[in-house]
Amino acid sequence: MESRQDITNQELWTMKPRRNPEEDDYLDKDLGETSTLKRTVFSHMHPTTHFDGFDCPAELQHKQELFPMWRWPVKIAAIVSSLTFLYTLLREVIHPFITSHQQYFYKIPILVINKVLPMVSITLLALVYLPGVIAAMVQLRNGTKYKKFPRWLDRWMLTRKQLGLLSFFFAVLHAIYSLSYPMRRSYRYKLLNWAYQQVQKNKEDAWIEHDVWRMEIYVSLGIVALAILALLAVTSVPSVSDSLTWREFHYIQSKLGTVSLLLGTIHALIFAWNKWVDIKQFVWYTPPTFMIAVFLPIVVLFCKAILFLPCLRKKILKIRHGWEDVTKINRTDMSSQL
Amino acid sequence: MESRQDITNQELWTMKPRRNPEEDDYLDKDLGETSTLKRTVFSHMHPTTHFDGFDCPAELQHKQELFPMWRWPVKIAAIVSSLTFLYTLLREVIHPFITSHQQYFYKIPILVINKVLPMVSITLLALVYLPGVIAAMVQLRNGTKYKKFPRWLDRWMLTRKQLGLLSFFFAVLHAIYSLSYPMRRSYRYKLLNWAYQQVQKNKEDAWIEHDVWRMEIYVSLGIVALAILALLAVTSVPSVSDSLTWREFHYIQSKLGTVSLLLGTIHALIFAWNKWVDIKQFVWYTPPTFMIAVFLPIVVLFCKAILFLPCLRKKILKIRHGWEDVTKINRTDMSSQL
Amino acid sequence: MESRQDITNQELWTMKPRRNPEEDDYLDKDLGETSTLKRTVFSHMHPTTHFDGFDCPAELQHKQELFPMWRWPVKIAAIVSSLTFLYTLLREVIHPFITSHQQYFYKIPILVINKVLPMVSITLLALVYLPGVIAAMVQLRNGTKYKKFPRWLDRWMLTRKQLGLLSFFFAVLHAIYSLSYPMRRSYRYKLLNWAYQQVQKNKEDAWIEHDVWRMEIYVSLGIVALAILALLAVTSVPSVSDSLTWREFHYIQSKLGTVSLLLGTIHALIFAWNKWVDIKQFVWYTPPTFMIAVFLPIVVLFCKAILFLPCLRKKILKIRHGWEDVTKINRTDMSSQL
Repeated sequence: MESRQDITNQELWTMKPRRNPEEDDYLDKDLGETSTLKRTVFSHMHPTTHFDGFDCPAELQHKQELFPMWRWPVKIAAIVSSLTFLYTLLREVIHPFITSHQQYFYKIPILVINKVLPMVSITLLALVYLPGVIAAMVQLRNGTKYKKFPRWLDRWMLTRKQLGLLSFFFAVLHAIYSLSYPMRRSYRYKLLNWAYQQVQKNKEDAWIEHDVWRMEIYVSLGIVALAILALLAVTSVPSVSDSLTWREFHYIQSKLGTVSLLLGTIHALIFAWNKWVDIKQFVWYTPPTFMIAVFLPIVVLFCKAILFLPCLRKKILKIRHGWEDVTKINRTDMSSQL
Repeated sequence: MESRQDITNQELWTMKPRRNPEEDDYLDKDLGETSTLKRTVFSHMHPTTHFDGFDCPAELQHKQELFPMWRWPVKIAAIVSSLTFLYTLLREVIHPFITSHQQYFYKIPILVINKVLPMVSITLLALVYLPGVIAAMVQLRNGTKYKKFPRWLDRWMLTRKQLGLLSFFFAVLHAIYSLSYPMRRSYRYKLLNWAYQQVQKNKEDAWIEHDVWRMEIYVSLGIVALAILALLAVTSVPSVSDSLTWREFHYIQSKLGTVSLLLGTIHALIFAWNKWVDIKQFVWYTPPTFMIAVFLPIVVLFCKAILFLPCLRKKILKIRHGWEDVTKINRTDMSSQL
Repeated sequence: MESRQDITNQELWTMKPRRNPEEDDYLDKDLGETSTLKRTVFSHMHPTTHFDGFDCPAELQHKQELFPMWRWPVKIAAIVSSLTFLYTLLREVIHPFITSHQQYFYKIPILVINKVLPMVSITLLALVYLPGVIAAMVQLRNGTKYKKFPRWLDRWMLTRKQLGLLSFFFAVLHAIYSLSYPMRRSYRYKLLNWAYQQVQKNKEDAWIEHDVWRMEIYVSLGIVALAILALLAVTSVPSVSDSLTWREFHYIQSKLGTVSLLLGTIHALIFAWNKWVDIKQFVWYTPPTFMIAVFLPIVVLFCKAILFLPCLRKKILKIRHGWEDVTKINRTDMSSQL
């Protein structure tokens, strides 16, 4: 009977493992992050529902919300993606077409998309560490940790994991797209034409030292940043994070995460190189993508650096230990009474 | 004693951590990493067998079957691989050697293998969703879901996860092999020769617009299809799938899976491009690999599309809700009585 | 309150799931898949510590050690890395600079690093299987498995998993760095110059058959070796290894691991190709990196082959079944009494 139910669900790649009924009774008790997990189990454990659970998704649609934690991060990713896409399209495809009737539409499937991916990735990663900075500032202002955070900040902090995993997902795509560049016909034809021109010009050496350096460094940094992000992603797998002590987990997710954000930002800055002063980059007075991309990360890293100054650092730790700045608390209480 | 047993198994990369019954009492005492692990394994280590289990694999060989669920999928992959390999070898290496004595044997390690990988990958992915289609048809014919499926269909449906993971494995290999193309010496030398010829011919522009477009699009589609497959693979990790609700899991495994099959098929079709009408492709009257590769996926996608037509869709859902088509059931009962 | 505690930790990418104490009572009851997860969380949910655990890392620093199992493997990786880095730097950058004032410093970010990565990766992988070989020899000498191993061997064997995962990590980095080669400007400029020279020399064909073969083979082997390592890494994820039977786990971790070590070694040897006899490779009388890299793996593989000889194989299995070579034991006892 068991397997009958499992396999009657025809559209699945596979089916979820199931649990033993003895557990039903405690299923409703508990709260917290893991509740999803239990809800899951619940959904196909409860004698009355699990049969439907496997045979008619339709009914469950009213019961189970689809990826509640992922909605907001995915929305942000979607918005940033589409905006960056349009912006890059305008600068790299439409502008040359209008001004000098050059057809660069072939750039859309890979080159334009691969300007969107890193932009989204680094923005999401910055959004992972921004709320922490804000929360620290709020605590410093309140002078206590027992005062509730604003609702939006709470929600934001609870979706950091999703933001981080999405950021990693886009970073990996960015890497694969970049690695595919020399594979493309467009690159081959360009190379052949460059070679032809070099021969025509009788130019013996095409080498441009600073350009070589720029690329060697930013490619290398990019790979390292991605590798560190991968560690964070792996430690987000439930069974892996469970095998870590709290301190190990904190070390990877906080310290290494900030490092990868830093490396990612440097990666972008070195990619930019000397384009900051290059007037040709500002087509139609718009700044190149990377300038917009690095803005938020730099702000976050800057704030983190400030908060790390001994004086502030000490106070924050004291507050997190439960210490309270009486003067401020009273003040805030009054203000709330007014 | 504990560590003695663990480490006596010398050939392991690592060993499955475990616990012997003496440890039960400190279950609540201890914190940290190893405790979890020990407990885990205890849960599937029968007290009487686990000592042997770690000290003499030989004895266990009669008790434990090796990857029972993986046998069938791996066999299929092996068969499809070897057939495609021989077929491609014949067309790309042996044919030019016999007809015009050209030595293309260097193609075997990478180019030939990388025709095999995508073929196997997309075939396996199609085989993941084919049984679902068949099952739906069977249910429509039977007019009920309470009639048992044929034995082979049951078994097939229970190995969809393995088929899907294998498909992903081959897809990743396909991606890495493809990305390694421009790295190879053979590619470098070809480029240099092409450049030389271009100069000789005094051909200023090597650019072939439609060829550029073709590659930009199919590379981009391939990467996206792989990314989606990766999501399916990740959600197949037990502890990840446990953290999903049934509906979320169904959404990824069913909807996204079909999307990646669709993208993979389009990826293959765009790779084919105009070769369908190109007579040179049919060496020795054999069709190129991609034509054979896309056949099964197209059939599956077509059937899925048909079954999604409102009329049929509604009936299937009704049947899965438990509704029964009395007329048919009686008929089938009779036929079984005859 | 629950969520309050979670989110007060501002630096995290995400936070670890938590359970509430009411669940303690069923901890021993339940078996099966998720049991681990629940127990785990319990292990760092201990009423006295978890509050601090989530609110003040500082306090925990005295209680929890940071990655105790990873220390030793990471140290080895760090040492091997830095030594290889200096060695390669000397040979590939400093030597040409001193002898012929050629500036190859641009090689440091990618080319030099990518000589370090494979070196570390294959060394670590060899160190995973070396202790097993030593242990087998020790047991053969002792003629029993009940005699304790030397302390260092015990510790070594317990860190094989970490060594293996590190090896995989470096192997992946090696792959990505290698794939990025043709993407780099330095490669592009070199290609253009080669094309120019070919035209100048009026050399029609740049093709070098044996060089093409060499690369096709070693790239292909490298990818396959990496793919197998990936399987080992995936089966090291707790929830995945839990879903395997002991024999399946042993099969992957022991058999496949050795295969990937073998393939990796062949990959390195084919990369070397005919450089063994090429005197130019021995700058300042130092051997090229790959010669040093393959030494340890070859030793390990050789010992494994010896130990696999029927005569020795049988005896080892007997010993692991609990059989004891009385003569030897007595002798060793005496020697220990002297």
